[in-house]
Amino acid sequence: MATPAPPPPLREVERTARRRSAAEEARTIVAAANLATLATLSRDGHPWGSLVSYGTLPDGSPVLCLSSLAEHGRNLPRDARASLVVAATPGDGDPLDSGRVTLAGTAYVPEGIELENARDAHLAAVPGADAYMGYGDFTIWVLRVERVRWVGGFGRMDSTNAEAYAAAEPDPVAASAPYAVAHLNEDHDDALLDMGRALAGYTDATAARCTGADRYGLDLVVHTPRGRAPVRVEFAAPITVANGLRSATVELARRAQAQLAEVA
Amino acid sequence: MATPAPPPPLREVERTARRRSAAEEARTIVAAANLATLATLSRDGHPWGSLVSYGTLPDGSPVLCLSSLAEHGRNLPRDARASLVVAATPGDGDPLDSGRVTLAGTAYVPEGIELENARDAHLAAVPGADAYMGYGDFTIWVLRVERVRWVGGFGRMDSTNAEAYAAAEPDPVAASAPYAVAHLNEDHDDALLDMGRALAGYTDATAARCTGADRYGLDLVVHTPRGRAPVRVEFAAPITVANGLRSATVELARRAQAQLAEVA
Repeated sequence: MATPAPPPPLREVERTARRRSAAEEARTIVAAANLATLATLSRDGHPWGSLVSYGTLPDGSPVLCLSSLAEHGRNLPRDARASLVVAATPGDGDPLDSGRVTLAGTAYVPEGIELENARDAHLAAVPGADAYMGYGDFTIWVLRVERVRWVGGFGRMDSTNAEAYAAAEPDPVAASAPYAVAHLNEDHDDALLDMGRALAGYTDATAARCTGADRYGLDLVVHTPRGRAPVRVEFAAPITVANGLRSATVELARRAQAQLAEVA
Repeated sequence: MATPAPPPPLREVERTARRRSAAEEARTIVAAANLATLATLSRDGHPWGSLVSYGTLPDGSPVLCLSSLAEHGRNLPRDARASLVVAATPGDGDPLDSGRVTLAGTAYVPEGIELENARDAHLAAVPGADAYMGYGDFTIWVLRVERVRWVGGFGRMDSTNAEAYAAAEPDPVAASAPYAVAHLNEDHDDALLDMGRALAGYTDATAARCTGADRYGLDLVVHTPRGRAPVRVEFAAPITVANGLRSATVELARRAQAQLAEVA
């Protein structure tokens, strides 16, 4: 069953294709969670998976606190190669259609100031670790990330390298985006329609819904008599603060309204 | 900070220690989910973790449907050793204080009637797999379980073997237990108190709360002037049906009431 191609805009607009990179997607998913699955190598070389909690250093390196009584804690001193899989909280649909990332690398035991920083990073993400971190059988490990695989859902995936991962920032608005999307659809469908008509060039749009929000812009679906089309509208500048979605969206709505007034 | 030992019962009661075995816990966790993390071996022997959906054969063997375009789908034909980590949906507390299981084994591609059964098992658990299962790059894999590690939370863990895992049943009341526990605490605290006084021997109990329910019985915490104590009360017979918790709990409450009436 072929899906018809979405209709084109009726007025040429500047393409606003800026989106989070694979490295930014990965950093965003890793920053949002503190629970992951660790893959290590058992004595006989068998891959061994186990649930772990983790914190994150400023460069995105995961910090684990592992007991030498557990299989993963016995595996790493023998062979430090490991992968960490972090899954985004799935939405309502197919859970395989949501984000996850695999960080493959080599674990090491930090020392001195790096150990202090690693311990602080782990405790910041896993406050309960306070209860066992001091025990003699627990060791702090840092995973030096060497290879990153991000999957955003069906058909959205990419690999990235250690340098890009370390240099990227988690999206500061990731946590507030689901609420913002729901709020826009419930209370501001007029503003979304303005954006679809003015900024995306669908001058015949009759309705628009928001399907996603990130630091760079909004994803909309515009409804027209010619069919529906996914469009992207971009903020004036990337958002840099956690509570920045509201003002950036207001700016977008004003810009759309001003353009429509000009035309009329 | 030492925790004082809980007070003993005031009347001797038969110890009712029957609980789910590690194999039953593992089967129960695996049966309740369809999303897991797979650990395989990359070309260079590095452990590689990835998110997968799975179904389950009647003996508990996981059935995967993997694309040869994905790293895990390229890894298994080269080295079929793998582990699958399934995590129970965490409760409100520390997520590391909830159940998970690692199934370590060797994957193989089933044939003939076994392939049909595996395909059906996968589709029953992952209806959306219908959309891609027929594509040429997807292959059905069965994980032959060789080693099982169950962790129930802090201090609750055990290993079990392939035979015990295959022979065990998932707990049929696992899905309804959280609702049943909440309902008992909200509307039937008198019945719980009766159970604590009569069946657990805490004749001086002033209140009782239910903290867990499974096919074999209820976990309670009884409050007494001497302190609190965790107790276990066992059903007359293990529950064998998904909606069996209500009648089994009613029987427990009646038994407790009858005992108290006898004494009075």
